[in-house]
Amino acid sequence: MPYVNIRITRDGATAEQKAELIRGATRLLVDVLGKNPATTFVIIDEVETDNWGVGGESTTVIRRRQK
Amino acid sequence: MPYVNIRITRDGATAEQKAELIRGATRLLVDVLGKNPATTFVIIDEVETDNWGVGGESTTVIRRRQK
Amino acid sequence: MPYVNIRITRDGATAEQKAELIRGATRLLVDVLGKNPATTFVIIDEVETDNWGVGGESTTVIRRRQK
Amino acid sequence: MPYVNIRITRDGATAEQKAELIRGATRLLVDVLGKNPATTFVIIDEVETDNWGVGGESTTVIRRRQK
Amino acid sequence: MPYVNIRITRDGATAEQKAELIRGATRLLVDVLGKNPATTFVIIDEVETDNWGVGGESTTVIRRRQK
Amino acid sequence: MPYVNIRITRDGATAEQKAELIRGATRLLVDVLGKNPATTFVIIDEVETDNWGVGGESTTVIRRRQK
Repeated sequence: MPYVNIRITRDGATAEQKAELIRGATRLLVDVLGKNPATTFVIIDEVETDNWGVGGESTTVIRRRQK
Repeated sequence: MPYVNIRITRDGATAEQKAELIRGATRLLVDVLGKNPATTFVIIDEVETDNWGVGGESTTVIRRRQK
Repeated sequence: MPYVNIRITRDGATAEQKAELIRGATRLLVDVLGKNPATTFVIIDEVETDNWGVGGESTTVIRRRQK
Repeated sequence: MPYVNIRITRDGATAEQKAELIRGATRLLVDVLGKNPATTFVIIDEVETDNWGVGGESTTVIRRRQK
Repeated sequence: MPYVNIRITRDGATAEQKAELIRGATRLLVDVLGKNPATTFVIIDEVETDNWGVGGESTTVIRRRQK
Repeated sequence: MPYVNIRITRDGATAEQKAELIRGATRLLVDVLGKNPATTFVIIDEVETDNWGVGGESTTVIRRRQK
């Protein structure tokens, strides 16, 4: 009964893309460890770019500079 | 000083229901382990049904089929 | 299908006490929100006292002073 | 490659304050442990006051009483 | 720059199986969302069976009964 | 009442270094957002290098190659 938490920046991932993440992460746990999919949870957190930092800067600032 | 994180799907839990979860989880830590309620945190995360999967499918899809 | 994560300091909680936390947290979600216990996860993390701080100090230091 | 997750109540923290949290947490990991800032993540979660409890009460209730 | 946290019971997953989880979860984020693998983190937490409950019982108890 | 979770690889961080992380993270929340240190939690998780992946590889493998 695994629990998978995927955290990404909020960037317009579609319901279909999120469904693919859920399918793919579940299949991974089944294939690698033989886990039961019925008790495999996948939770996706979408985080505002102001709230996600890397290299000491928010993703908002990093992307503005990359344009 | 426990930390309790309750993650549920976003389904219209009311402020009163969330207050009951906070009260109940705090009392549980006090009763079972003698923890100090003043430093017991309870944080509730409400997750969109598109973002919560089980059995390889999103809760949105599971519920649509159950109707 | 809730997910409950309880984080406490590692202080010798027994298997029976941890079983009570699992039972109690599950019942709370059933009673307050009508959740299905079969898909309610409760995960307990026990954290070393050197690794848990409050008020700017580790729990190890706080307890040494309280003796 | 550290991962830092800062959870606060949603209280109108500005983008500039959140940028300071990201800068400060990253610098802390560099200064104390010599970590590489390029692979240091800082993620800020802002939680509704109804969803954050301490002492068995939601922050919404605590603040109403303190007024 | 996604962050993936996989939580499983501690059951003797080998280093090679954990490497497969890391590879697979990273590839999933690249394939579905075009994320950069160089800033994709995958963290696996292995949790004692006494500390993981489902259906109101610890995994230790559930497995003992299933034998 | 913030909650800060710092996740690092298990690499022999000393109790003193962990105390500095706790002090520094607490001070950051006080300085930037005026939070009360008495209800600021800092929890450090040390993760085995086999269990932490970046770029699709475990930290164990990355470090072996870098020697």
